[in-house]
Amino acid sequence: MSVEQANRTAIERMMASHPMLKTVARAGDVIPGLEAKKILHAGPPIEWSRMSGPLRGAVVGALLYEGLASSREDAIHLVERGEIAFSPCHHHGVVGPMAGVTSASMQVYVVEDEVHNRHAYSTLNEGYGKVLRYGAFAPEVLDKLRWMNEEMAPILRVALEERGSIDLRALLAEALHMGDEGHNRNKAGSLLFLKHLAPAIEHTAKESALAADVLAFLGDNALAVLNPVMAACKLMAEAGAGVERSTVVTTMARNGTDFGIRVSGLGDRWFTAPAEVPDGLYFPGFSSADANPDIGDSTITETAGIGAFAMAAAPAIVTFVGGAPEEALNASLEMYEITTGEHDHFTIPALGFRGTPVGIDIRKVVELGLTPRVNTGIAHREAGVGQVGAGLVRPPMSLFEDALIAFAEKYLEDI
Amino acid sequence: MSVEQANRTAIERMMASHPMLKTVARAGDVIPGLEAKKILHAGPPIEWSRMSGPLRGAVVGALLYEGLASSREDAIHLVERGEIAFSPCHHHGVVGPMAGVTSASMQVYVVEDEVHNRHAYSTLNEGYGKVLRYGAFAPEVLDKLRWMNEEMAPILRVALEERGSIDLRALLAEALHMGDEGHNRNKAGSLLFLKHLAPAIEHTAKESALAADVLAFLGDNALAVLNPVMAACKLMAEAGAGVERSTVVTTMARNGTDFGIRVSGLGDRWFTAPAEVPDGLYFPGFSSADANPDIGDSTITETAGIGAFAMAAAPAIVTFVGGAPEEALNASLEMYEITTGEHDHFTIPALGFRGTPVGIDIRKVVELGLTPRVNTGIAHREAGVGQVGAGLVRPPMSLFEDALIAFAEKYLEDI
Repeated sequence: MSVEQANRTAIERMMASHPMLKTVARAGDVIPGLEAKKILHAGPPIEWSRMSGPLRGAVVGALLYEGLASSREDAIHLVERGEIAFSPCHHHGVVGPMAGVTSASMQVYVVEDEVHNRHAYSTLNEGYGKVLRYGAFAPEVLDKLRWMNEEMAPILRVALEERGSIDLRALLAEALHMGDEGHNRNKAGSLLFLKHLAPAIEHTAKESALAADVLAFLGDNALAVLNPVMAACKLMAEAGAGVERSTVVTTMARNGTDFGIRVSGLGDRWFTAPAEVPDGLYFPGFSSADANPDIGDSTITETAGIGAFAMAAAPAIVTFVGGAPEEALNASLEMYEITTGEHDHFTIPALGFRGTPVGIDIRKVVELGLTPRVNTGIAHREAGVGQVGAGLVRPPMSLFEDALIAFAEKYLEDI
Repeated sequence: MSVEQANRTAIERMMASHPMLKTVARAGDVIPGLEAKKILHAGPPIEWSRMSGPLRGAVVGALLYEGLASSREDAIHLVERGEIAFSPCHHHGVVGPMAGVTSASMQVYVVEDEVHNRHAYSTLNEGYGKVLRYGAFAPEVLDKLRWMNEEMAPILRVALEERGSIDLRALLAEALHMGDEGHNRNKAGSLLFLKHLAPAIEHTAKESALAADVLAFLGDNALAVLNPVMAACKLMAEAGAGVERSTVVTTMARNGTDFGIRVSGLGDRWFTAPAEVPDGLYFPGFSSADANPDIGDSTITETAGIGAFAMAAAPAIVTFVGGAPEEALNASLEMYEITTGEHDHFTIPALGFRGTPVGIDIRKVVELGLTPRVNTGIAHREAGVGQVGAGLVRPPMSLFEDALIAFAEKYLEDI
């Protein structure tokens, strides 16, 4: 099989993937290998000593949430004594926005690719303000986590049982026609999510006041659907993995220190390089001096052909990430240059319903000197602060060069 | 005051209008002049003998719904005996999509312009399929009307009381950034509407199953918010009415036989001409031969600067009304040629957040030979059938010529 054929196979598998949101479950009960004293994190593997502020903050928060530590100092001692194991979300079928920290007691969305018989998982989205995913761990952050995991999650589980699975690919396709790009802008998708769940929440809720709180929490959080969408994208990207001779990127993820990618024909090997600071709009009182380098697994959206790749569908996003609406159009057009095909299911009305660019080809990235675009939130570089802005970032070119060299070594005759 | 100044005053008043959805009430209790044996209809005044099939069908349906008649024949006899009075919705602060038929027992949204201290009203949207507004009056049509008016309306009323008013101008502004144009495409707006009401519906509902049905009915109806949006547009347009020397159009409406307009500086006088058949996409099994001429008050959206005027915000609409996405962009650009200004509150991301074209100027329409664009549903020409498609239409040029002549007669020195 030629590289061209292999890449076509990879994206056809990605597009055939059909992710359905099935239920909500306790992470430790459903995620393979997630034991009590293990913390999953965004991006490629990293040890504590190299972790950035927001990732450390989220780890502290998770240890407090789990009851494994009683203070920040206590949590840090626990980690430094080597009692906590760390592992990338991506090694467990999990994806998490920003710090991506996932621990055993947290509740996760369970998404199933019925075509490839595979599952992916993602925590419940916390909304805006001081949140764990941006490295905050103050008491109110933990209180909200407790409410979400102990009060909201059971309601979502019962509602999903009554309603049946939610077709996330169809939801995303519709949201792209409603001004979302599926990564930083999930306004329409989150409302579609609310619409799908609201009647069942109403119907099955035992306590009306709590159900009303859940409807308000979901309705007021324009990122409510981001986490299940990321799990859906993980399944789509994963479906394209492991195709011999394919140069298609199947993982892009950042841990706040390193940006890492994986390539279909190169198995589970990570290629990493220092993550860069995003270029974007900062909240009042903050500047790029406050920004942590790029962090989070949410680049799985671009890997699957949405996010910045679908920006032409979401011109209003520039109010959030900066730039002019024409740039949103150009962002998508540029990404066709480095991808393998156009998506069968995700289309962009403003481009005459052209399919979104899908399947980043490391050969084209290197040949054209053009790295993938990524939309992202920006975290404060210190633990405990939170989000300071949103913007655009690109992975370092060296990732793609290193991957291409490795590809050449493995498949010398093919390129 | 010059015509230019007068037109500027008219659109400034339109843009200052701030429509808030206050409550839901029985039409006969809140609409001035709506007695038991009176039927309000869309468009300019018309007598029974000239009414088109869908309007006649809706009148029959309303008389059956009111219990004033027991059969189609009975209803027709009642009308022919002169026992039923007809009056345009627009004469009572009401606007109705398609046939627009509104009778005393129906429930209406009550929208208030708090700036100009004025109210407007519109019935509850029935969703798709066989519906009264397209002239259907079969038993299932009446059953649905009864459910909506007797079961759903009280829940919406209590929910609005608990929640407080909904800012429809803000809702529309947000929906235009989510791919709606506010007339034929109200997908995002309807979900925003659902989001605003869902927690209060959950919280205040006495019967959980019924509340779940209401959430499903609203969530599954991508036109749920059209009627309150139309009432909001009526208030905005009305705010611009009655400005001496203004050539701005303040009403465009069709009764299925005639298209009528009214102009700010010309008071309550209607200018009418035969309505045309829209050009669009037909549902399977139907063609333009089945289509009734243009009908409905929903052109109030274009009058207020949204709908077809904001099509550049809604490229995905072409799947419904026909044409290519570039045409959606051009539709808005063309409308800047015949309008007075750009909207302060309604902006189009794809045009660099330019305000929508607002305040149709009859002078520009005549001078450029360019009539306003209108997005619309298409009704079957016979009573009782329903919707057969959706598309684009323009009012006859003679309306604007006649209005301009009348304007010249009234304000000879000004033009």
